[in-house]
Amino acid sequence: MALIVQKYGGSSVADAAAIKRVAKRIAEAKRAGDDVVVVVSAMGDTTDELLDLANEVSPRPPSREMDILLTAGERISMALLAMAIANLGVEAQAFTGQQAGVITDDAHGRARIIDVKAGRIHQALAEGAVAIVAGFQGVTATTNDVTTLGRGGSDTTAVAIAAAIHADVCEIYTDVDGVFTADPRIVPTARKIARITYEEMLDMAASGAKVLGLRCVEYGRRQGVRIHVRSSFSGHTGTLVTDEPQQAPEGEGTMEQPIIAGVAHDRSEAKVTVVGVPDVPGTAAQIFETVAASGVNIDMIVQNVSAAQTGLTDISFTLPATDGQRAIAALVAEQGTIGYVSLQYDDTIGKLSLVGAGMKSHPGVSAQLFGALRDAGINIEMISTSEIRVSVVTRADQLDDAVRAVHTAFGLDSTEGEAVVYGGTGR
Amino acid sequence: MALIVQKYGGSSVADAAAIKRVAKRIAEAKRAGDDVVVVVSAMGDTTDELLDLANEVSPRPPSREMDILLTAGERISMALLAMAIANLGVEAQAFTGQQAGVITDDAHGRARIIDVKAGRIHQALAEGAVAIVAGFQGVTATTNDVTTLGRGGSDTTAVAIAAAIHADVCEIYTDVDGVFTADPRIVPTARKIARITYEEMLDMAASGAKVLGLRCVEYGRRQGVRIHVRSSFSGHTGTLVTDEPQQAPEGEGTMEQPIIAGVAHDRSEAKVTVVGVPDVPGTAAQIFETVAASGVNIDMIVQNVSAAQTGLTDISFTLPATDGQRAIAALVAEQGTIGYVSLQYDDTIGKLSLVGAGMKSHPGVSAQLFGALRDAGINIEMISTSEIRVSVVTRADQLDDAVRAVHTAFGLDSTEGEAVVYGGTGR
Repeated sequence: MALIVQKYGGSSVADAAAIKRVAKRIAEAKRAGDDVVVVVSAMGDTTDELLDLANEVSPRPPSREMDILLTAGERISMALLAMAIANLGVEAQAFTGQQAGVITDDAHGRARIIDVKAGRIHQALAEGAVAIVAGFQGVTATTNDVTTLGRGGSDTTAVAIAAAIHADVCEIYTDVDGVFTADPRIVPTARKIARITYEEMLDMAASGAKVLGLRCVEYGRRQGVRIHVRSSFSGHTGTLVTDEPQQAPEGEGTMEQPIIAGVAHDRSEAKVTVVGVPDVPGTAAQIFETVAASGVNIDMIVQNVSAAQTGLTDISFTLPATDGQRAIAALVAEQGTIGYVSLQYDDTIGKLSLVGAGMKSHPGVSAQLFGALRDAGINIEMISTSEIRVSVVTRADQLDDAVRAVHTAFGLDSTEGEAVVYGGTGR
Repeated sequence: MALIVQKYGGSSVADAAAIKRVAKRIAEAKRAGDDVVVVVSAMGDTTDELLDLANEVSPRPPSREMDILLTAGERISMALLAMAIANLGVEAQAFTGQQAGVITDDAHGRARIIDVKAGRIHQALAEGAVAIVAGFQGVTATTNDVTTLGRGGSDTTAVAIAAAIHADVCEIYTDVDGVFTADPRIVPTARKIARITYEEMLDMAASGAKVLGLRCVEYGRRQGVRIHVRSSFSGHTGTLVTDEPQQAPEGEGTMEQPIIAGVAHDRSEAKVTVVGVPDVPGTAAQIFETVAASGVNIDMIVQNVSAAQTGLTDISFTLPATDGQRAIAALVAEQGTIGYVSLQYDDTIGKLSLVGAGMKSHPGVSAQLFGALRDAGINIEMISTSEIRVSVVTRADQLDDAVRAVHTAFGLDSTEGEAVVYGGTGR
């Protein structure tokens, strides 16, 4: 008998039929003898519909009221899911984020969980019931106002509750079979990753893999929560995110870790080049202080070697394309102070990242990556590396070819035919 | 400057355009210098849509989870309304029933308000904001579970809050101009009643007038809350429900109360006749104990004089037609014990009620009513009277004629042309 947290995203509870199917899976786990806590997102497109309504009544809805509005979505799904489970003869109690004790700071729309007081969840389990908890939402400790956690919030709720109740595992149900060595829509021979470390998963997520949110993985790492990413449409084992060493089949100690976990890609970034920057100390600081003050997070930075004759250099950086306008406006406003010549903006770039904890002990991975891209005729525009990741920027229309070439070069291709692919992801 | 509670029903906030229109009215009241607390129902058909979803996942949804589900409706409307008001430059804070301090018993689906702890409402008003409160919902004091108040619940919320904060008036906005001397869809010459006592309003509501719920009026009477029923589609003064004596124009003391307030009608009842009941003490008690035990409320009762030869009598009573099947089943099960001969069921009846506090001091009202019906050729099947009301049962297809005849006979017809009529009512 285990204590399990299960999280179902919006696509898993999109309509009454889907809710009944999920209820059946939950009831089976309960009947098998497990204690089950379920975290659920809003049904299908509910959140987007509520956002549309808000935009119809106000161009800039206040964030406190926006959170009240959006949390209606999980209220509906959690109540319906509890009803559907009860209808199968298994007791279920539904709890809002507040009732489940999810305490957050007061940053409406992007609140952070600061505590989980799981008294009512424990009580429900002690009474033999399944506890259904609304994902994505919490309550402030001071004002008792409802908050939302932002994108990926339900995953974070699930991991936080799993940590608070010391669950054996936190199962994140989604519409794909797990985390893959590459996006199967681009690389049909991508393999499902059976096991991945938090660090690798963080780098995969930060590099564009959308299955799990950064905050959820970060929370899981800090609290040591085993996360099992799996499909709500199949019974297959998915991907286990954990730092526990894997036991070799015959008790010969731990298995050797693979060098490369996978290839992530990201098409959502843009590149800004600040042309003709005076090559004197402090200019780079001025540029990035200006961008940061506009509330934009930047990703990669490249500074070209200065041409000694001119005393000018170029600085390029990447950022989310949705923030491009804001960053450009901030830089234009400070052109006089910074003293650059011109700005270039390019949103037709793609980013490829090779992630693997084994890189730490295996030199030459970068060289092998660059060689694979050269052989495929793909030009590299920017490079950035961390201890377990190498990222390169290419032309957007060459990104798919680049991902396939790298996937093959590092021996990640499956020999068992094509991967099963489903569409979309929940929040 | 006044302290005003305004309540808007579902039809007044049916879509984004309606919400913006209501927001404008609220902002105007606030700008005019009044302190405003707004109670709002769920948008249009939201509640029915949520009920449909519940029925899709479970034939018998648990009542606690049903309340969680239904309260999502007001969550959406209250947040949107607060946003729309803020967009007009007037600060607005939205509160759930729980945040507004609406404490109820734990009878899910039909909870009663037992207290209102209006601390946060007072605070919002002190900060110069409009307070928006979700109608129809509260929270139990013991378990912190959300509850709903049942049909007409938002009206009750509004009156309870008005009582708790000692508001000058509780304005109930609806889609008609106020309470009329009869339903204007049946009597085009019906007049809007300018002022009516709680007692009269209670009898009108109990007799089929749908503008205000019984519980809301009862709460208002007990707490002395002035209730102003008016249209959210016009700026007209509506109907004031109060026991305060009306001042005569020239300071000559109070005006004389009109004898008759209005004519109500009800087409939702059915008549059960228990034929051939032994005319011995205790039989009537047996019949009505049986019906009560099945959870059915009965309205009028008539027992015919016993035919001395047979020792048998007939007993007729009326009840909501929706409860007919249940009452009949209960009586059939006890036929052996009660010892009646047969049952008759008739759901083609109509009830007309003449209501007026002046009846207390004016004898002859009943006689005048019966005379008016006789002159119109309408047969009376049952009669029931209270201190300020006379009700008669007629054939359903004669009810409209009966209402018109009585309305004219008591001099209630307007001389100013036809009344303005709108369709439907909110919850």
